[in-house]
Amino acid sequence: MPAIGKTSWAIAEGYIPGDSVSQDPALVSHEAACILNANESSEAHVTITIYFGNRDPVGPYRAVVPPRRCLHLRFNDLNEPEPIPRDTSYASVIQSDVPVVVQHTRLDSRNPAIALLSTIAFSGS
Amino acid sequence: MPAIGKTSWAIAEGYIPGDSVSQDPALVSHEAACILNANESSEAHVTITIYFGNRDPVGPYRAVVPPRRCLHLRFNDLNEPEPIPRDTSYASVIQSDVPVVVQHTRLDSRNPAIALLSTIAFSGS
Amino acid sequence: MPAIGKTSWAIAEGYIPGDSVSQDPALVSHEAACILNANESSEAHVTITIYFGNRDPVGPYRAVVPPRRCLHLRFNDLNEPEPIPRDTSYASVIQSDVPVVVQHTRLDSRNPAIALLSTIAFSGS
Amino acid sequence: MPAIGKTSWAIAEGYIPGDSVSQDPALVSHEAACILNANESSEAHVTITIYFGNRDPVGPYRAVVPPRRCLHLRFNDLNEPEPIPRDTSYASVIQSDVPVVVQHTRLDSRNPAIALLSTIAFSGS
Repeated sequence: MPAIGKTSWAIAEGYIPGDSVSQDPALVSHEAACILNANESSEAHVTITIYFGNRDPVGPYRAVVPPRRCLHLRFNDLNEPEPIPRDTSYASVIQSDVPVVVQHTRLDSRNPAIALLSTIAFSGS
Repeated sequence: MPAIGKTSWAIAEGYIPGDSVSQDPALVSHEAACILNANESSEAHVTITIYFGNRDPVGPYRAVVPPRRCLHLRFNDLNEPEPIPRDTSYASVIQSDVPVVVQHTRLDSRNPAIALLSTIAFSGS
Repeated sequence: MPAIGKTSWAIAEGYIPGDSVSQDPALVSHEAACILNANESSEAHVTITIYFGNRDPVGPYRAVVPPRRCLHLRFNDLNEPEPIPRDTSYASVIQSDVPVVVQHTRLDSRNPAIALLSTIAFSGS
Repeated sequence: MPAIGKTSWAIAEGYIPGDSVSQDPALVSHEAACILNANESSEAHVTITIYFGNRDPVGPYRAVVPPRRCLHLRFNDLNEPEPIPRDTSYASVIQSDVPVVVQHTRLDSRNPAIALLSTIAFSGS
Protein backbone atom coordinates (compact mmCIF):
# COMPACT_ATOMS: atom_id res chain seq x y z
CA MET A 1 0.00 0.00 0.00
CA PRO A 2 1.46 3.40 -0.93
CA ALA A 3 1.82 5.88 1.89
CA ILE A 4 -1.13 8.19 2.41
CA GLY A 5 -0.83 11.61 3.94
CA LYS A 6 1.02 14.87 4.11
CA THR A 7 4.07 16.11 6.01
CA SER A 8 2.61 19.37 7.31
CA TRP A 9 -0.61 19.79 9.29
CA ALA A 10 -2.31 22.44 11.38
CA ILE A 11 -5.06 22.43 13.99
CA ALA A 12 -6.28 25.98 14.51
CA GLU A 13 -8.58 25.21 17.43
CA GLY A 14 -7.18 23.94 20.68
CA TYR A 15 -8.57 24.00 24.19
CA ILE A 16 -8.23 21.55 27.05
CA PRO A 17 -11.03 22.06 29.58
CA GLY A 18 -9.60 22.26 33.07
CA ASP A 19 -12.47 20.38 34.67
CA SER A 20 -13.70 16.82 34.35
CA VAL A 21 -16.46 15.04 36.17
CA SER A 22 -14.48 11.82 35.93
CA GLN A 23 -10.85 10.95 36.50
CA ASP A 24 -11.27 7.76 34.48
CA PRO A 25 -8.53 8.23 31.86
CA ALA A 26 -11.04 7.44 29.09
CA LEU A 27 -13.39 10.17 30.28
CA VAL A 28 -11.15 12.94 31.56
CA SER A 29 -11.46 16.09 29.43
CA HIS A 30 -8.79 15.84 26.80
CA GLU A 31 -7.71 16.89 23.36
CA ALA A 32 -5.88 14.62 20.96
CA ALA A 33 -4.07 14.65 17.66
CA CYS A 34 -4.50 11.22 16.16
CA ILE A 35 -1.59 10.53 13.85
CA LEU A 36 -1.57 7.66 11.37
CA ASN A 37 1.72 6.54 9.86
CA ALA A 38 0.70 4.14 7.11
CA ASN A 39 4.17 3.93 5.63
CA GLU A 40 5.40 0.40 5.23
CA SER A 41 8.87 0.83 6.70
CA SER A 42 9.60 4.46 7.63
CA GLU A 43 9.31 5.82 11.15
CA ALA A 44 7.59 9.20 11.32
CA HIS A 45 9.55 11.75 13.33
CA VAL A 46 6.94 14.26 14.35
CA THR A 47 7.44 17.75 15.76
CA ILE A 48 4.61 19.77 17.25
CA THR A 49 4.66 23.53 17.79
CA ILE A 50 2.02 25.09 20.02
CA TYR A 51 0.79 28.62 19.29
CA PHE A 52 -0.95 30.93 21.73
CA GLY A 53 -2.89 34.17 21.58
CA ASN A 54 -0.58 36.28 23.66
CA ARG A 55 2.88 34.75 23.86
CA ASP A 56 5.54 33.10 21.74
CA PRO A 57 5.06 29.58 20.47
CA VAL A 58 6.35 26.64 22.50
CA GLY A 59 8.08 23.63 21.08
CA PRO A 60 9.05 21.55 19.40
CA TYR A 61 7.36 18.72 21.19
CA ARG A 62 8.52 15.47 19.66
CA ALA A 63 6.93 12.10 18.98
CA VAL A 64 7.85 9.06 16.94
CA VAL A 65 5.23 6.96 15.18
CA PRO A 66 6.57 3.60 13.99
CA PRO A 67 5.71 2.45 10.47
CA ARG A 68 2.22 0.90 10.16
CA ARG A 69 1.12 2.31 13.49
CA CYS A 70 -1.13 5.08 14.76
CA LEU A 71 -0.58 7.32 17.74
CA HIS A 72 -3.45 8.79 19.73
CA LEU A 73 -1.45 11.71 21.10
CA ARG A 74 -3.13 13.57 23.96
CA PHE A 75 -2.07 17.18 24.25
CA ASN A 76 -2.76 16.70 27.97
CA ASP A 77 0.27 14.44 28.14
CA LEU A 78 2.77 16.76 26.46
CA ASN A 79 5.23 17.88 29.13
CA GLU A 80 8.50 18.55 27.34
CA PRO A 81 9.47 21.42 26.98
CA GLU A 82 6.43 22.37 29.14
CA PRO A 83 2.82 21.28 29.81
CA ILE A 84 -0.02 22.71 27.71
CA PRO A 85 -2.00 25.08 29.93
CA ARG A 86 -5.65 24.21 30.61
CA ASP A 87 -8.58 26.50 29.88
CA THR A 88 -6.43 28.32 27.32
CA SER A 89 -6.92 28.65 23.56
CA TYR A 90 -4.04 27.37 21.50
CA ALA A 91 -3.29 26.07 18.01
CA SER A 92 -0.77 23.55 16.74
CA VAL A 93 1.36 22.82 13.72
CA ILE A 94 2.40 19.21 13.26
CA GLN A 95 5.27 18.34 10.95
CA SER A 96 6.58 14.93 9.99
CA ASP A 97 9.51 13.74 7.90
CA VAL A 98 7.26 11.22 6.12
CA PRO A 99 3.58 11.48 5.12
CA VAL A 100 1.09 11.01 7.94
CA VAL A 101 -2.60 11.73 8.48
CA VAL A 102 -3.75 13.90 11.40
CA GLN A 103 -7.22 14.17 12.93
CA HIS A 104 -8.20 16.39 15.84
CA THR A 105 -10.57 15.29 18.60
CA ARG A 106 -11.75 16.73 21.90
CA LEU A 107 -13.69 15.06 24.66
CA ASP A 108 -15.19 17.60 27.02
CA SER A 109 -16.36 16.15 30.33
CA ARG A 110 -16.92 19.30 32.32
CA ASN A 111 -20.47 18.01 32.42
CA PRO A 112 -21.58 14.40 33.14
CA ALA A 113 -22.95 14.39 29.59
CA ILE A 114 -19.73 14.41 27.63
CA ALA A 115 -19.42 16.37 24.39
CA LEU A 116 -17.23 15.40 21.45
CA LEU A 117 -15.83 17.17 18.45
CA SER A 118 -13.55 15.96 15.69
CA THR A 119 -12.21 17.16 12.38
CA ILE A 120 -9.55 16.25 9.93
CA ALA A 121 -6.69 18.68 10.42
CA PHE A 122 -5.65 21.14 7.70
CA SER A 123 -2.96 19.70 5.49
CA GLY A 124 -0.34 21.84 3.85
CA SER A 125 2.45 20.33 1.81
CA MET B 1 -23.65 12.68 -13.21
CA PRO B 2 -19.87 12.18 -13.24
CA ALA B 3 -18.47 10.13 -10.37
CA ILE B 4 -17.37 12.11 -7.35
CA GLY B 5 -14.71 10.98 -4.95
CA LYS B 6 -11.30 9.47 -4.46
CA THR B 7 -9.94 5.94 -4.31
CA SER B 8 -7.84 6.27 -1.16
CA TRP B 9 -9.04 7.54 2.21
CA ALA B 10 -7.79 7.56 5.79
CA ILE B 11 -9.43 8.05 9.18
CA ALA B 12 -6.73 8.73 11.77
CA GLU B 13 -9.05 8.64 14.78
CA GLY B 14 -10.85 5.49 15.73
CA TYR B 15 -12.35 4.37 19.02
CA ILE B 16 -15.39 2.26 19.77
CA PRO B 17 -16.56 2.84 23.35
CA GLY B 18 -17.12 -0.47 25.08
CA ASP B 19 -20.15 0.72 27.00
CA SER B 20 -23.59 1.84 25.94
CA VAL B 21 -26.58 2.81 28.01
CA SER B 22 -28.85 1.37 25.34
CA GLN B 23 -28.80 -1.81 23.31
CA ASP B 24 -31.12 -0.27 20.74
CA PRO B 25 -29.07 -0.73 17.55
CA ALA B 26 -29.59 2.93 16.68
CA LEU B 27 -28.19 4.06 20.03
CA VAL B 28 -25.47 1.56 20.86
CA SER B 29 -22.02 3.18 20.91
CA HIS B 30 -20.62 2.77 17.44
CA GLU B 31 -18.26 4.12 14.86
CA ALA B 32 -19.00 4.18 11.16
CA ALA B 33 -17.38 4.86 7.83
CA CYS B 34 -20.10 6.09 5.53
CA ILE B 35 -19.14 5.28 1.96
CA LEU B 36 -20.91 6.79 -1.03
CA ASN B 37 -20.50 5.18 -4.43
CA ALA B 38 -22.05 7.69 -6.83
CA ASN B 39 -20.75 5.91 -9.92
CA GLU B 40 -23.46 5.18 -12.43
CA SER B 41 -22.58 1.57 -13.16
CA SER B 42 -19.40 0.44 -11.34
CA GLU B 43 -19.41 -1.53 -8.12
CA ALA B 44 -16.90 -0.26 -5.56
CA HIS B 45 -14.71 -3.00 -4.15
CA VAL B 46 -13.51 -1.60 -0.87
CA THR B 47 -10.69 -2.83 1.34
CA ILE B 48 -10.16 -1.54 4.86
CA THR B 49 -6.94 -1.86 6.83
CA ILE B 50 -7.01 -1.21 10.57
CA TYR B 51 -3.92 0.25 12.28
CA PHE B 52 -3.14 0.09 15.98
CA GLY B 53 -0.73 1.74 18.37
CA ASN B 54 1.17 -1.32 19.44
CA ARG B 55 0.69 -4.14 16.97
CA ASP B 56 0.65 -4.90 13.27
CA PRO B 57 -2.26 -3.76 11.11
CA VAL B 58 -5.19 -6.10 10.54
CA GLY B 59 -6.96 -6.60 7.26
CA PRO B 60 -7.99 -6.32 4.62
CA TYR B 61 -11.61 -6.17 5.62
CA ARG B 62 -13.73 -6.16 2.49
CA ALA B 63 -16.98 -4.55 1.44
CA VAL B 64 -18.80 -4.02 -1.84
CA VAL B 65 -20.85 -0.90 -2.50
CA PRO B 66 -23.12 -1.23 -5.54
CA PRO B 67 -23.26 1.66 -8.02
CA ARG B 68 -25.54 4.53 -6.93
CA ARG B 69 -25.65 3.28 -3.36
CA CYS B 70 -24.23 4.27 -0.01
CA LEU B 71 -23.01 2.01 2.74
CA HIS B 72 -23.15 3.00 6.39
CA LEU B 73 -20.41 0.61 7.50
CA ARG B 74 -20.15 0.14 11.26
CA PHE B 75 -16.69 -0.81 12.44
CA ASN B 76 -18.53 -2.64 15.23
CA ASP B 77 -19.76 -5.12 12.65
CA LEU B 78 -16.40 -5.97 11.07
CA ASN B 79 -15.58 -9.53 12.05
CA GLU B 80 -13.47 -10.94 9.24
CA PRO B 81 -10.49 -11.42 9.67
CA GLU B 82 -11.18 -10.40 13.31
CA PRO B 83 -13.41 -8.06 15.36
CA ILE B 84 -12.24 -4.51 16.11
CA PRO B 85 -11.39 -4.33 19.81
CA ARG B 86 -13.44 -1.96 21.96
CA ASP B 87 -11.96 0.82 24.09
CA THR B 88 -8.87 0.80 21.87
CA SER B 89 -7.49 3.55 19.65
CA TYR B 90 -7.16 2.59 16.02
CA ALA B 91 -6.98 4.19 12.59
CA SER B 92 -8.11 3.01 9.18
CA VAL B 93 -7.17 3.25 5.53
CA ILE B 94 -9.99 2.67 3.06
CA GLN B 95 -9.21 1.90 -0.57
CA SER B 96 -11.59 1.44 -3.46
CA ASP B 97 -11.14 0.48 -7.09
CA VAL B 98 -13.47 3.31 -8.16
CA PRO B 99 -13.96 6.80 -6.68
CA VAL B 100 -16.01 6.95 -3.49
CA VAL B 101 -16.59 9.47 -0.71
CA VAL B 102 -15.91 8.55 2.93
CA GLN B 103 -17.15 10.27 6.08
CA HIS B 104 -16.37 9.24 9.64
CA THR B 105 -18.95 9.32 12.44
CA ARG B 106 -19.06 8.16 16.05
CA LEU B 107 -22.03 7.91 18.36
CA ASP B 108 -20.93 7.62 21.98
CA SER B 109 -23.67 6.41 24.32
CA ARG B 110 -21.63 5.63 27.40
CA ASN B 111 -23.82 8.31 28.92
CA PRO B 112 -27.62 8.69 28.50
CA ALA B 113 -26.86 11.99 26.76
CA ILE B 114 -25.28 10.71 23.57
CA ALA B 115 -22.37 12.54 21.97
CA LEU B 116 -21.67 12.69 18.25
CA LEU B 117 -18.68 13.51 16.11
CA SER B 118 -18.24 13.47 12.37
CA THR B 119 -15.67 14.54 9.80
CA ILE B 120 -14.95 14.01 6.19
CA ALA B 121 -12.11 11.51 5.98
CA PHE B 122 -8.71 12.45 4.53
CA SER B 123 -8.54 11.75 0.83
CA GLY B 124 -5.32 10.77 -0.86
CA SER B 125 -5.22 9.89 -4.54
CA MET C 1 -14.63 39.50 -3.64
CA PRO C 2 -13.97 36.59 -6.02
CA ALA C 3 -16.33 33.67 -5.70
CA ILE C 4 -15.24 30.91 -3.32
CA GLY C 5 -16.30 27.32 -3.63
CA LYS C 6 -16.85 24.35 -5.88
CA THR C 7 -19.70 23.16 -8.06
CA SER C 8 -19.83 19.55 -6.89
CA TRP C 9 -20.13 18.35 -3.30
CA ALA C 10 -20.92 15.13 -1.48
CA ILE C 11 -22.05 14.27 2.05
CA ALA C 12 -21.54 10.57 2.64
CA GLU C 13 -23.26 10.46 6.04
CA GLY C 14 -26.92 11.21 6.34
CA TYR C 15 -29.43 10.27 9.03
CA ILE C 16 -32.45 12.13 10.35
CA PRO C 17 -33.42 10.78 13.78
CA GLY C 18 -37.13 10.08 13.88
CA ASP C 19 -37.54 11.21 17.46
CA SER C 20 -37.16 14.57 19.13
CA VAL C 21 -37.81 15.61 22.69
CA SER C 22 -38.88 19.03 21.47
CA GLN C 23 -41.07 20.22 18.64
CA ASP C 24 -39.49 23.67 18.83
CA PRO C 25 -38.29 24.09 15.24
CA ALA C 26 -34.84 25.10 16.48
CA LEU C 27 -34.52 21.91 18.54
CA VAL C 28 -36.28 19.23 16.51
CA SER C 29 -33.86 16.56 15.29
CA HIS C 30 -32.70 17.66 11.89
CA GLU C 31 -29.97 17.47 9.33
CA ALA C 32 -28.90 20.39 7.17
CA ALA C 33 -26.75 21.23 4.22
CA CYS C 34 -25.64 24.81 4.67
CA ILE C 35 -24.93 26.32 1.27
CA LEU C 36 -23.09 29.60 0.83
CA ASN C 37 -23.32 31.41 -2.50
CA ALA C 38 -20.70 34.16 -2.23
CA ASN C 39 -20.94 35.07 -5.89
CA GLU C 40 -21.55 38.75 -6.46
CA SER C 41 -24.30 38.47 -9.03
CA SER C 42 -25.03 34.85 -10.03
CA GLU C 43 -27.86 32.79 -8.61
CA ALA C 44 -26.84 29.26 -7.68
CA HIS C 45 -29.17 26.63 -9.12
CA VAL C 46 -28.62 23.65 -6.88
CA THR C 47 -29.65 20.05 -7.44
CA ILE C 48 -29.50 17.43 -4.71
CA THR C 49 -29.52 13.69 -5.30
CA ILE C 50 -30.17 11.39 -2.36
CA TYR C 51 -28.54 7.94 -2.26
CA PHE C 52 -29.68 4.99 -0.18
CA GLY C 53 -28.30 1.63 0.85
CA ASN C 54 -30.86 -0.54 -0.79
CA ARG C 55 -32.74 1.33 -3.49
CA ASP C 56 -32.21 3.70 -6.40
CA PRO C 57 -31.31 7.33 -5.77
CA VAL C 58 -34.06 9.92 -5.51
CA GLY C 59 -33.92 13.36 -7.05
CA PRO C 60 -33.12 15.83 -8.18
CA TYR C 61 -34.33 18.01 -5.37
CA ARG C 62 -33.90 21.63 -6.38
CA ALA C 63 -33.02 24.84 -4.58
CA VAL C 64 -31.98 28.31 -5.61
CA VAL C 65 -29.53 30.36 -3.58
CA PRO C 66 -29.48 34.04 -4.58
CA PRO C 67 -26.11 35.75 -4.99
CA ARG C 68 -24.52 36.88 -1.70
CA ARG C 69 -26.84 34.72 0.33
CA CYS C 70 -26.63 31.49 2.33
CA LEU C 71 -29.24 28.78 2.59
CA HIS C 72 -29.59 26.58 5.66
CA LEU C 73 -31.32 23.74 3.84
CA ARG C 74 -32.92 21.14 6.13
CA PHE C 75 -33.17 17.71 4.59
CA ASN C 76 -36.25 17.35 6.82
CA ASP C 77 -38.00 19.90 4.63
CA LEU C 78 -37.30 18.28 1.25
CA ASN C 79 -40.59 16.98 -0.09
CA GLU C 80 -40.34 17.10 -3.86
CA PRO C 81 -40.07 14.51 -5.44
CA GLU C 82 -40.56 12.76 -2.05
CA PRO C 83 -39.72 13.24 1.67
CA ILE C 84 -36.44 11.90 3.06
CA PRO C 85 -37.25 8.91 5.26
CA ARG C 86 -36.42 9.17 8.96
CA ASP C 87 -34.19 6.71 10.82
CA THR C 88 -32.61 5.72 7.51
CA SER C 89 -29.01 6.09 6.36
CA TYR C 90 -28.58 8.11 3.20
CA ALA C 91 -25.97 10.16 1.37
CA SER C 92 -26.23 13.18 -0.88
CA VAL C 93 -24.56 14.75 -3.88
CA ILE C 94 -25.05 18.49 -4.26
CA GLN C 95 -24.35 20.17 -7.58
CA SER C 96 -24.48 23.83 -8.48
CA ASP C 97 -24.04 25.76 -11.68
CA VAL C 98 -21.80 28.28 -9.91
CA PRO C 99 -19.27 27.77 -7.08
CA VAL C 100 -20.77 27.37 -3.62
CA VAL C 101 -19.56 26.09 -0.25
CA VAL C 102 -21.39 23.25 1.54
CA GLN C 103 -21.21 22.24 5.19
CA HIS C 104 -23.11 19.38 6.81
CA THR C 105 -24.67 19.60 10.27
CA ARG C 106 -26.93 17.39 12.36
CA LEU C 107 -28.76 18.23 15.54
CA ASP C 108 -29.90 15.10 17.35
CA SER C 109 -32.52 15.72 20.02
CA ARG C 110 -33.66 12.18 20.69
CA ASN C 111 -32.36 12.96 24.16
CA PRO C 112 -32.97 16.19 26.16
CA ALA C 113 -29.22 16.73 25.93
CA ILE C 114 -28.87 17.51 22.26
CA ALA C 115 -25.88 16.29 20.29
CA LEU C 116 -24.32 18.09 17.34
CA LEU C 117 -22.02 17.14 14.51
CA SER C 118 -20.70 19.16 11.60
CA THR C 119 -18.18 18.80 8.82
CA ILE C 120 -17.26 20.53 5.65
CA ALA C 121 -18.64 18.41 2.80
CA PHE C 122 -16.36 16.71 0.29
CA SER C 123 -15.72 18.90 -2.73
CA GLY C 124 -15.16 17.46 -6.14
CA SER C 125 -14.72 19.67 -9.18
CA MET D 1 9.02 26.87 9.55
CA PRO D 2 7.35 27.81 6.26
CA ALA D 3 3.93 29.39 6.57
CA ILE D 4 1.00 26.98 6.44
CA GLY D 5 -2.43 27.96 5.26
CA LYS D 6 -4.53 29.75 2.69
CA THR D 7 -5.68 33.34 2.26
CA SER D 8 -9.37 32.64 1.59
CA TRP D 9 -11.71 30.59 3.78
CA ALA D 10 -15.43 30.00 4.12
CA ILE D 11 -17.69 28.65 6.86
CA ALA D 12 -21.08 27.82 5.38
CA GLU D 13 -22.77 27.00 8.69
CA GLY D 14 -23.23 29.66 11.30
CA TYR D 15 -25.66 29.91 14.20
CA ILE D 16 -25.27 31.43 17.64
CA PRO D 17 -27.88 30.00 20.02
CA GLY D 18 -29.60 32.80 21.87
CA ASP D 19 -29.87 30.88 25.12
CA SER D 20 -27.28 29.57 27.53
CA VAL D 21 -27.70 27.83 30.85
CA SER D 22 -24.51 29.46 32.06
CA GLN D 23 -23.13 32.98 31.84
CA ASP D 24 -19.64 31.68 32.58
CA PRO D 25 -17.74 33.03 29.54
CA ALA D 26 -16.28 29.59 28.90
CA LEU D 27 -19.73 28.01 28.79
CA VAL D 28 -21.97 30.62 27.21
CA SER D 29 -23.30 29.47 23.82
CA HIS D 30 -20.85 30.74 21.24
CA GLU D 31 -19.42 30.23 17.83
CA ALA D 32 -15.78 30.81 16.97
CA ALA D 33 -13.44 31.02 14.04
CA CYS D 34 -10.05 29.93 15.28
CA ILE D 35 -7.38 31.55 13.14
CA LEU D 36 -3.75 30.45 13.21
CA ASN D 37 -1.10 32.75 11.78
CA ALA D 38 2.03 30.60 11.70
CA ASN D 39 3.99 33.10 9.65
CA GLU D 40 7.32 33.98 11.19
CA SER D 41 7.12 37.74 10.81
CA SER D 42 3.98 38.87 8.94
CA GLU D 43 0.86 40.15 10.65
CA ALA D 44 -2.34 38.72 9.20
CA HIS D 45 -4.89 41.39 8.36
CA VAL D 46 -8.16 39.51 8.35
CA THR D 47 -11.51 40.61 6.97
CA ILE D 48 -14.73 38.74 7.68
CA THR D 49 -17.92 39.07 5.66
CA ILE D 50 -21.15 37.67 7.12
CA TYR D 51 -23.82 36.30 4.76
CA PHE D 52 -27.48 35.82 5.60
CA GLY D 53 -30.45 34.06 4.08
CA ASN D 54 -32.61 37.06 3.43
CA ARG D 55 -30.56 40.24 3.42
CA ASP D 56 -27.33 41.69 2.10
CA PRO D 57 -24.01 40.67 3.59
CA VAL D 58 -22.53 42.67 6.45
CA GLY D 59 -18.89 43.59 6.77
CA PRO D 60 -16.07 43.71 6.60
CA TYR D 61 -15.36 42.91 10.20
CA ARG D 62 -11.63 43.25 10.81
CA ALA D 63 -9.09 41.48 12.97
CA VAL D 64 -5.32 41.38 13.14
CA VAL D 65 -3.45 38.24 14.09
CA PRO D 66 0.21 38.87 14.94
CA PRO D 67 2.84 36.55 13.50
CA ARG D 68 3.24 33.26 15.39
CA ARG D 69 -0.04 33.74 17.20
CA CYS D 70 -3.55 32.27 17.08
CA LEU D 71 -6.82 34.10 17.57
CA HIS D 72 -9.88 32.38 18.98
CA LEU D 73 -12.37 34.83 17.45
CA ARG D 74 -15.89 34.58 18.85
CA PHE D 75 -18.56 35.71 16.43
CA ASN D 76 -20.48 36.68 19.58
CA ASP D 77 -17.97 39.46 20.12
CA LEU D 78 -18.12 41.02 16.65
CA ASN D 79 -19.79 44.40 17.01
CA GLU D 80 -18.39 46.59 14.25
CA PRO D 81 -20.12 47.35 11.88
CA GLU D 82 -22.94 45.55 13.78
CA PRO D 83 -23.50 42.57 16.12
CA ILE D 84 -24.23 39.13 14.68
CA PRO D 85 -27.87 38.33 15.39
CA ARG D 86 -28.61 35.33 17.62
CA ASP D 87 -30.80 32.39 16.61
CA THR D 88 -30.16 33.25 12.97
CA SER D 89 -28.43 31.20 10.28
CA TYR D 90 -25.45 32.88 8.70
CA ALA D 91 -22.27 32.04 6.83
CA SER D 92 -18.89 33.72 6.69
CA VAL D 93 -16.01 34.33 4.33
CA ILE D 94 -12.66 35.02 5.94
CA GLN D 95 -9.87 36.59 3.93
CA SER D 96 -6.31 37.32 4.97
CA ASP D 97 -3.39 39.04 3.30
CA VAL D 98 -1.07 36.20 4.37
CA PRO D 99 -1.74 32.45 4.71
CA VAL D 100 -3.67 31.42 7.81
CA VAL D 101 -5.58 28.34 8.96
CA VAL D 102 -9.23 28.59 10.01
CA GLN D 103 -11.29 26.13 12.05
CA HIS D 104 -14.94 26.53 13.00
CA THR D 105 -16.31 25.56 16.42
CA ARG D 106 -19.62 25.97 18.20
CA LEU D 107 -20.43 25.38 21.85
CA ASP D 108 -24.17 25.08 22.40
CA SER D 109 -25.22 25.43 26.02
CA ARG D 110 -28.94 25.84 25.61
CA ASN D 111 -29.01 22.65 27.66
CA PRO D 112 -26.93 21.89 30.79
CA ALA D 113 -25.31 19.13 28.75
CA ILE D 114 -23.31 21.21 26.32
CA ALA D 115 -22.91 20.11 22.71
CA LEU D 116 -19.89 20.80 20.54
CA LEU D 117 -19.16 20.80 16.85
CA SER D 118 -16.02 21.64 14.93
CA THR D 119 -14.70 21.42 11.39
CA ILE D 120 -11.86 22.75 9.38
CA ALA D 121 -13.23 25.59 7.25
CA PHE D 122 -13.30 25.38 3.47
CA SER D 123 -10.16 26.83 1.94
CA GLY D 124 -10.16 28.53 -1.41
CA SER D 125 -7.03 30.13 -2.83
